Amino acid sequence: MKKWEKVTIDPAARQLLPKAQADGVETVWDRYEAQQPQCGFGQLGLCCRNCVQGPCRINPFGEPQKGICGATADVIVARNLVRSVAGGAASHADHAYDAVEALYLAAAGEIPYEIKDEVKLAAVAGKLGVQTEGKEKGQLAREVAELAFGDFANHTRAPMRWLTATAPAERVEIWEKLGILPRNPDREIREAIHQTTMGMDADPVNLLLAAAKLGLTDGYGGLHLATDIQDILFGTPMPVETEANMGVLKEDHVNIVVHGHVPLLSEKVVEWAKKLEDEARAAGAAGIQVSGICCTGNEVLMRHGVPAAGNYLSQELAIVTGAVDAMVVDVQCIMPSLANVAACYHTKIVTTMPIVKLPGADHVPFTLATADNDAEKIVRIALEAYRRRDPAKVAIPQVKSKMWGGFSVEAIVGALKAVNDEDPLKPLVDNIANGNILGAVATVGCNNVKVVQDRTHVELVKALIKENVLVVTTGCSAHALAKAGLMTPEAAINYAGPGLRAVLTAVGEAAGLGGPLPPVLHMGSCVDNSRVADLVSALAAYLMVPVKDLPVAASAPELQHEKALSIGTWAVALGIFTHLGVVPPVLGSAQVVKLLTADLEGLVGGKFYVETDPHKAAEGIITHLKDQRRKLGL
Amino acid sequence: MKKWEKVTIDPAARQLLPKAQADGVETVWDRYEAQQPQCGFGQLGLCCRNCVQGPCRINPFGEPQKGICGATADVIVARNLVRSVAGGAASHADHAYDAVEALYLAAAGEIPYEIKDEVKLAAVAGKLGVQTEGKEKGQLAREVAELAFGDFANHTRAPMRWLTATAPAERVEIWEKLGILPRNPDREIREAIHQTTMGMDADPVNLLLAAAKLGLTDGYGGLHLATDIQDILFGTPMPVETEANMGVLKEDHVNIVVHGHVPLLSEKVVEWAKKLEDEARAAGAAGIQVSGICCTGNEVLMRHGVPAAGNYLSQELAIVTGAVDAMVVDVQCIMPSLANVAACYHTKIVTTMPIVKLPGADHVPFTLATADNDAEKIVRIALEAYRRRDPAKVAIPQVKSKMWGGFSVEAIVGALKAVNDEDPLKPLVDNIANGNILGAVATVGCNNVKVVQDRTHVELVKALIKENVLVVTTGCSAHALAKAGLMTPEAAINYAGPGLRAVLTAVGEAAGLGGPLPPVLHMGSCVDNSRVADLVSALAAYLMVPVKDLPVAASAPELQHEKALSIGTWAVALGIFTHLGVVPPVLGSAQVVKLLTADLEGLVGGKFYVETDPHKAAEGIITHLKDQRRKLGL
Repeated sequence: MKKWEKVTIDPAARQLLPKAQADGVETVWDRYEAQQPQCGFGQLGLCCRNCVQGPCRINPFGEPQKGICGATADVIVARNLVRSVAGGAASHADHAYDAVEALYLAAAGEIPYEIKDEVKLAAVAGKLGVQTEGKEKGQLAREVAELAFGDFANHTRAPMRWLTATAPAERVEIWEKLGILPRNPDREIREAIHQTTMGMDADPVNLLLAAAKLGLTDGYGGLHLATDIQDILFGTPMPVETEANMGVLKEDHVNIVVHGHVPLLSEKVVEWAKKLEDEARAAGAAGIQVSGICCTGNEVLMRHGVPAAGNYLSQELAIVTGAVDAMVVDVQCIMPSLANVAACYHTKIVTTMPIVKLPGADHVPFTLATADNDAEKIVRIALEAYRRRDPAKVAIPQVKSKMWGGFSVEAIVGALKAVNDEDPLKPLVDNIANGNILGAVATVGCNNVKVVQDRTHVELVKALIKENVLVVTTGCSAHALAKAGLMTPEAAINYAGPGLRAVLTAVGEAAGLGGPLPPVLHMGSCVDNSRVADLVSALAAYLMVPVKDLPVAASAPELQHEKALSIGTWAVALGIFTHLGVVPPVLGSAQVVKLLTADLEGLVGGKFYVETDPHKAAEGIITHLKDQRRKLGL
Repeated sequence: MKKWEKVTIDPAARQLLPKAQADGVETVWDRYEAQQPQCGFGQLGLCCRNCVQGPCRINPFGEPQKGICGATADVIVARNLVRSVAGGAASHADHAYDAVEALYLAAAGEIPYEIKDEVKLAAVAGKLGVQTEGKEKGQLAREVAELAFGDFANHTRAPMRWLTATAPAERVEIWEKLGILPRNPDREIREAIHQTTMGMDADPVNLLLAAAKLGLTDGYGGLHLATDIQDILFGTPMPVETEANMGVLKEDHVNIVVHGHVPLLSEKVVEWAKKLEDEARAAGAAGIQVSGICCTGNEVLMRHGVPAAGNYLSQELAIVTGAVDAMVVDVQCIMPSLANVAACYHTKIVTTMPIVKLPGADHVPFTLATADNDAEKIVRIALEAYRRRDPAKVAIPQVKSKMWGGFSVEAIVGALKAVNDEDPLKPLVDNIANGNILGAVATVGCNNVKVVQDRTHVELVKALIKENVLVVTTGCSAHALAKAGLMTPEAAINYAGPGLRAVLTAVGEAAGLGGPLPPVLHMGSCVDNSRVADLVSALAAYLMVPVKDLPVAASAPELQHEKALSIGTWAVALGIFTHLGVVPPVLGSAQVVKLLTADLEGLVGGKFYVETDPHKAAEGIITHLKDQRRKLGL
C-alpha cells in the first residue's frame, strides 16, 4: 500500500498527495512524520510549563512524582485539561461575541447586514423572555443583542441568561447543585486561567468541575449563542442539495475557497462572487466557484448550498490542485503552512481577522462596517490571481459526492411535520420506542493527523447506521461523511439498517423529497452542535425524561482542537455518553481518567468513552444505546 | 559550602533547611533537584501542546523546524509567551474583580466591610471623572465600583476607563497608534486565548502586540484597579515600622501566617486575631502573632505593620519552624506541597477560596458576607492547633531585621512635602537633576528556585544604591530586601552612595523620622506595582517628558510566576527599561528575542534586558540610567 493510502481514505486526497510530493510541497503528514517520536510526557499530560521555574515533568514509571511546586501528576494533568478546555471555550465565546456585535450593529442599521430571519429572532427573543409583540425587528434584535452582551457583562452570581433560556430545567438544577453554572463566559474563562496559574488549585476534582463549568460556558456562551445569532442574521438553514470533495473545484472557473469558522465575511464573499461573475467571464473564466473548507464551509453550505471542498486535513491539498485562486481565511484551524503551500502555486491566501495573520499571506482587514468593500476586494484578488494561474500545474481530482445539508432543528421538525403536523416529534419518538430506530448519535469534530483521515468518522458511522442508529453530524465529521456519500437518499438504501431505512423513507417521502432522508443529517458547523443539543433537549422534554436517560450518544472520532475538548465536556455535562476516538493528554493521571470516564457519570449522567478503533467504538456506543433503552423499558 | 548555603542567602532559611532534612520534610529545593535535567525544549519555549495532534517540538539544531500544523519556532515561542502573559493578566484581573465586588457590596452595606479611605475614594473618583461633590461615601463608592464593572462589561471599541484615567496621555496616544489599547480586561484575555489556539495567529509580531495589550490589561484592569479599590476599602498605606524574617514568629504565641495575595480575608484575620487574644491567653499562649508570606503579607504589612515571615521560597520553611499553628492561604503562589509539609507538624493549612483547594488542607469557604465568621473560625482553628503544638519540634531561627514599609505614592509625597510643601516633587527632581540621585529603579517579583534565594535581589540592589540609585520595591523582592536589612535608616548610612544618602537624610529628618529614609522604599504587594507606575508617571508629568525618557528602570531579579511576565510586559509598554534576572522561555526564537530586547524600544520606548548575574545587571542598569541622563542633558 502506498503511503497516501495509509494516511487517508479520501480518494481525492489520495490523488493529491502524490501531486504534492511531485510539486515539492510539504504537507501536514510530512510534518507529522518529522515530529516522530512525539514527547511522551506531553502525550500523557505530565508536562507543566505554567511557571518559569519549570518546565517540570512527572515520570510515570518512577521519580520525580512531583513538580517543583509540589504539583502531582493528577494536578498537572487536570490543570492542563482545564487550560485546553478554556482555549476551546474562549474560541467559541469570541466567535459568538463577534456575531452579537454584528447583530447589535445591524439592528442599529450601522453595518451592511440585514436581519434575515424574523421567525428565529422572535423564537430566540421568546426563549429569553423578551416581549416581542409590536416591536419592529430592529428594536427586537437590539434587545436580544443587549441581553447577549449582558451575559458577558454579568457581575452578579446569577447564571447566564442564554443558558437558563435554552438548557433543560432539570440540567440547570443539577449544574446548580454542582456549583458549575457559568455566570458570564468571559468571567469563567478569566477565572479558570487564574485557577491554573502557579500556586492555585491543587485539587483535581475541583479542577475538573472548573472544566465542566467551562464546557457549559462554551455550550451556551459560545455555541448556542453563535448559532442563534447567526441564524437571525443569515437565516435558519433548510434542506439543500450540494456536493462535497475536491471535484467541486472547477478548472474553467475562478475558484475561491472560504476557510475558517465564522460566516460574517464568507456570506459577503458568496454575495460578491455572484456580483462579479461578469468580470470573471471577462477575464476568460466561465464564472466564479466558491467552495468551503472546515466550518466556514459548513456555514455557507447550510445556508446557500455552497459545495464543500474538504475538511481540516485537506486544506493544503485544495491548494495543491493548482486551481484555487484565493483561499480566504477567518479564524481557527488555519494551518500556518498555507502560505508556504500557496507559494508553490499562484494561489493567494487572504487573511482577514486582526488576530489571525500569516507571514506571506495577503491581509485584507475585514470589518463589519466595510464588509462589502472587503468582500469585493477579496473576490478581485481571486480574479487577479486567476489570470496568473498555471494550467500546467492544475489537476483537480474528479471526485465528489452528492449530499444534502441544511438540517437545522427547524428543518428536521419541518420534515417530521409532513408526517404528523400536530405532533411532529411523535413519529420520531414512536420509531425509537418501537425499535425501528435504536437511538441517535452525533458525530462531530475534527480530523487529526494521528489517525487515517476520515476513516474513524466513516467506519464508525457506517457501523452505526447499519444497526439502525440515526446519525446527526457537524463540523469536519460532516465533511468526512459527506465525502463518503453518506448524506444522500441512496445511502439510506445502501447503508442503513431496515428499521432506520423504513423511517427515513417514510419521512423523506412525506416531506416531498422523492426518496428517503439521508441516514446522516448534516446539522452544520462546530458551533451548531447547539442544534444537536436542542434536538436532544426537545426529545427529552417530549418524553419527560432527563437528557441523561435518552438512547443517545456523541462522538468526536478524530478530535484535534481544544474546541473539541470543550464541546465534549459540554456534551458530558449535558448527560451524554461521549466517545473520543483519539486519546486526549490525560493518561498520566489515573485519578483524572477515572473521573472523566467513570465518576462523572454519577454527577452529571454523562461520561467520556475513549476507543480508537472505530468498530469497537461502534460496539461500545451500541451497547450504551441498548443499555439506555433497557433502562427506559424499551 | 553546605547545600543550604548554595541555595539561599537568607540566614533563617539556612537554619531551617537542615531542620527540614532532619524532620524528613521534602522542600522545593529537593523537588528542583529531582527535576534535573529540565526539558530543554520547554526551557527554550519550543514545545507546543495547543492541540491534540501534538505535542510538537522544534529542534533548535536541525529538524524538525516546524510543528505539525506548520507553526515555526517563532510562532510557538510567541504563542506560548502570549498564553503566559494572559495567565498573569487573568490572575490580576480576577484579583481586582474580587476587590471591585467587595467595594460594590460594601457601598451597599451588604457586607461587613467599611470604606476606610474617603480621600482616596474621592481621588480615584476624580480621576475617573465622577462628580464627587455632595455625595456621601456609599454613593460615590458605588459609582466607582460600577465604573470598574463597566470596564469588564465594555463591548464598545473604546479603551478601558481605568486606563485612560490613570495612564499618562502620551502613553495612551502611543498605545492607540499601535492598536494595543485594551477595551475590557476579560475580553482581551478571552481574545488572546482564542488567538493562540490551533490554526490562529502565525505572525510573531502580531502575537507580541497581543502580549503588550495583555500587559496593559494587567496594568490597568489588574494592578491599578486592585490597588485603588483596596486603598479605598482598607486605607492608603503610610510609613510603618515592623520586622522581617522567621524571627517574627513567637514561640510563646499562637502563630497565624497569612499567605497569598488578596487582603479581603487577611484584613479580617488580623482583626479577629486581636479580638481573640484573651482566648489565646486562656489556652496558655502569650497572645496571637499574625505574620505574612508573599503579597497577602505585604498587604497587611503596608497597612497594619504586620511583620513579614518570608517570601515565596520560605513558605514551606515557615512550617518547618514547628511554630506555625495555622497558615491561611487565599490565591496565587501557594505551593501544593504545603499540606504535605504541614502533615509533619501540627500546623493547619486553611484554604479559603473556591478556586484554590489543596487535598489534605482544611477548607473554610470564605465569602464577603460571612467574612467575620470565616476569620473567627480560622483564628479558632489556629488556637485549637496551638494546643497540639509539639514543643520538641519547635525551632524558630532568631533572625529578623527591622524595616520600614508603607511607602505608597501618597506617603512618599507626604514625606517630600516636609521638605517642600508647595512643590513636593521638586526636591526629588532637583536631586536627580544635580546628580545626587542617579536615577530610580523598581525591583519587583518573585523568588525562583533556579537561582539562589534572594541573592539577585539583594546584590543587585546593594550595587545600585551604592551608585546613588533610589530603589523602590514590591512583592517578594520587598521581602528579600527587608530581610537583608535594606529598609532601615541605617541602610542609608551603610549602603547608600553619598549623594543618595544626603537626600534620604534630608527628607527623613524633615519628615520627622529622626534619621534618613531607607534607601529602599517598600511600595507594597505585586499589584502595587501600580504605585510605582504612578510615581514614574508623576515624575514624567512634572518634568514634561515621556516616561520612556526618565532615568528609571525596573527589574524582576528572580521572576517565576506568569504574573511577573505580564507585569514586566506592562512596564516595557510604559516605556521602561526592564531587567529580568531569570531567562524566560523565549530563547528558541531569535525573532522573538530580538523583538523583546531590541525592536520593542522603537515602538514603545521600553525593552527587556536579560542578565542573570546581579553585578553585571547592576552595571547594565546603571549604564542605561546614565544614557537616559545624557539624553536629557543631565
